[in-house]
Amino acid sequence: MKVTMKEVARLAGVGVGTVSRVLNNGSVKATTRQKVEAAIAELGYQPDFYARGLKTNRTQTVALILPSVWHPFFAEFAFRVEKSLEARHYKMYLCDSDGNAEKEKDYIQLVAQNKVDGIIGITYSDIDKYISSNLPFVSIDRYFTEDVIYVTADNSTGGRMAVSELVARGCKNIAYIGGYQETPNETKSRRKYFEIECNERGLSYQVLDMLEPITWPNLVQQVQALIRQHPTIDGIFTINDGMALDVIRILRGQGYRIPEDIQVIGFDGQRINDGADYLVSTIAQPVKEMAEQAVALLIAVIEGQTVPQRTVLPVHFEDGGTTRPRQIDLR
Amino acid sequence: MKVTMKEVARLAGVGVGTVSRVLNNGSVKATTRQKVEAAIAELGYQPDFYARGLKTNRTQTVALILPSVWHPFFAEFAFRVEKSLEARHYKMYLCDSDGNAEKEKDYIQLVAQNKVDGIIGITYSDIDKYISSNLPFVSIDRYFTEDVIYVTADNSTGGRMAVSELVARGCKNIAYIGGYQETPNETKSRRKYFEIECNERGLSYQVLDMLEPITWPNLVQQVQALIRQHPTIDGIFTINDGMALDVIRILRGQGYRIPEDIQVIGFDGQRINDGADYLVSTIAQPVKEMAEQAVALLIAVIEGQTVPQRTVLPVHFEDGGTTRPRQIDLR
Repeated sequence: MKVTMKEVARLAGVGVGTVSRVLNNGSVKATTRQKVEAAIAELGYQPDFYARGLKTNRTQTVALILPSVWHPFFAEFAFRVEKSLEARHYKMYLCDSDGNAEKEKDYIQLVAQNKVDGIIGITYSDIDKYISSNLPFVSIDRYFTEDVIYVTADNSTGGRMAVSELVARGCKNIAYIGGYQETPNETKSRRKYFEIECNERGLSYQVLDMLEPITWPNLVQQVQALIRQHPTIDGIFTINDGMALDVIRILRGQGYRIPEDIQVIGFDGQRINDGADYLVSTIAQPVKEMAEQAVALLIAVIEGQTVPQRTVLPVHFEDGGTTRPRQIDLR
Repeated sequence: MKVTMKEVARLAGVGVGTVSRVLNNGSVKATTRQKVEAAIAELGYQPDFYARGLKTNRTQTVALILPSVWHPFFAEFAFRVEKSLEARHYKMYLCDSDGNAEKEKDYIQLVAQNKVDGIIGITYSDIDKYISSNLPFVSIDRYFTEDVIYVTADNSTGGRMAVSELVARGCKNIAYIGGYQETPNETKSRRKYFEIECNERGLSYQVLDMLEPITWPNLVQQVQALIRQHPTIDGIFTINDGMALDVIRILRGQGYRIPEDIQVIGFDGQRINDGADYLVSTIAQPVKEMAEQAVALLIAVIEGQTVPQRTVLPVHFEDGGTTRPRQIDLR
């Protein structure tokens, strides 16, 4: 026999509404909460959140759209979002869009049809026109032309930080290597503020910003050309950790030692799993906080609340072995 | 105006049933299929697979239960499963269970309540009693006491292969390092057949099989003790790539060069993303095929078909830089 909320209420000596508030983390006196939780434990009551969702015309499901979960940064983000949704009794659809706007639109339609409550999306395709301001949608990194809510790491400070960390580690001639995307994107601030910081410091610098998609032979050729033309380069900041790994592979292939000859700093803070080392030295995004904020904002929107359009979270430097110690010049 | 299946049938000069068979990849003459596909393209017809699912009492959703998607092997598996489900017009719930049997049972209940059509699970908890033979459930690696369908890599051949690959690369004194799980598990064959192969070859070997969960200080201590007691060890096979990475870190900390002094082979075939290098030399699982088979089997079960209980797929060796070239002894 399935235990009901009524039985929990009776044993706890409270009303059914109070039990409901406890289950929904509503405002309840601490002593009352304890009584209800004790009754839940004693009876082994299991709330049917899914059925509750149906009753309130909610599915208690959220779709997470990513380019690909087979990627350390997106995998961590998916992991964090799922954990955060679970705590709020939501289930998560995972959509690997790989930039496929059709697939992204498919999920947007499911929301419009009340089959999914909302979407958290890391999308780099041009789906602006399908996202209306009344659709529960929280974007990561990307800003759209319409009033889409988004969460982003502080890419501007990150760009500046890359310069200061390279300089503090003895670099005199630095460069930026990135991939240029047509769609408007917060990540563009990484290059922009790298340049602003260099200019403010009166530091000369090089920029290699390739049009995406970038092929491996093309990347190899352009990185080799950059180093050949500017042989004094001793520090490189890349748009993300994936690019840093590629650049390091190319430089090592040319006989350079990393970090002894050239130091490299990426952006993201990629690790293969919780507790593992960072893949490269990096300006790390606060992935856990970004995921938690995205979930909190999305659920607030689903519940009809007004939220700020832009949430910016701080970045920090992590040593992943591709930089030298701070303030010590080994040469 | 939404184009209907009827209009497609009329333009193609076939019945609605034929259009349906084309959409469901049923048996249709090639020329008929071409006519229908041309009509679909001309009219811009978009089948509403989700609504169809509801009509047939299906949700067109499948839950994937994993320990954690923040892990290169599971991330690739999730990526492959999602791709394979997408091709069959299914959406995927992602559940990071982290061995939480309660959370796994929650999804099993959703299937029982017809809210999810089936589950693909990589589970290491003891949820046997909740899985009945009429629940659409496909397990990876694990075999249950009941008749649960499962897909596994050929762990037995993998264990033997690790020995032959180490020997072919000049190893004379080899060891196995693993973590021992209480639950019955196909992965146990990795150690078992490593030992069988060694015995058949008359090769002496060492085994370090630790009870899980393994702490880092404990692992460091035991690996150091193994090497101290058996200083001639020149080749190590680990239960998975994660363990190989840990062992390599410990050995390098002790001053050993990998692969010059000690060669290491893991199991899984972990890469941080598609096209990236293998993290270590490894007995690679055919992740794509395992995902595709798991999806095909699950959908067959959902559709009421009888399928074999056990599907075993071949493994192969991949060089990830922690082994030396084959048949050449560098010493």
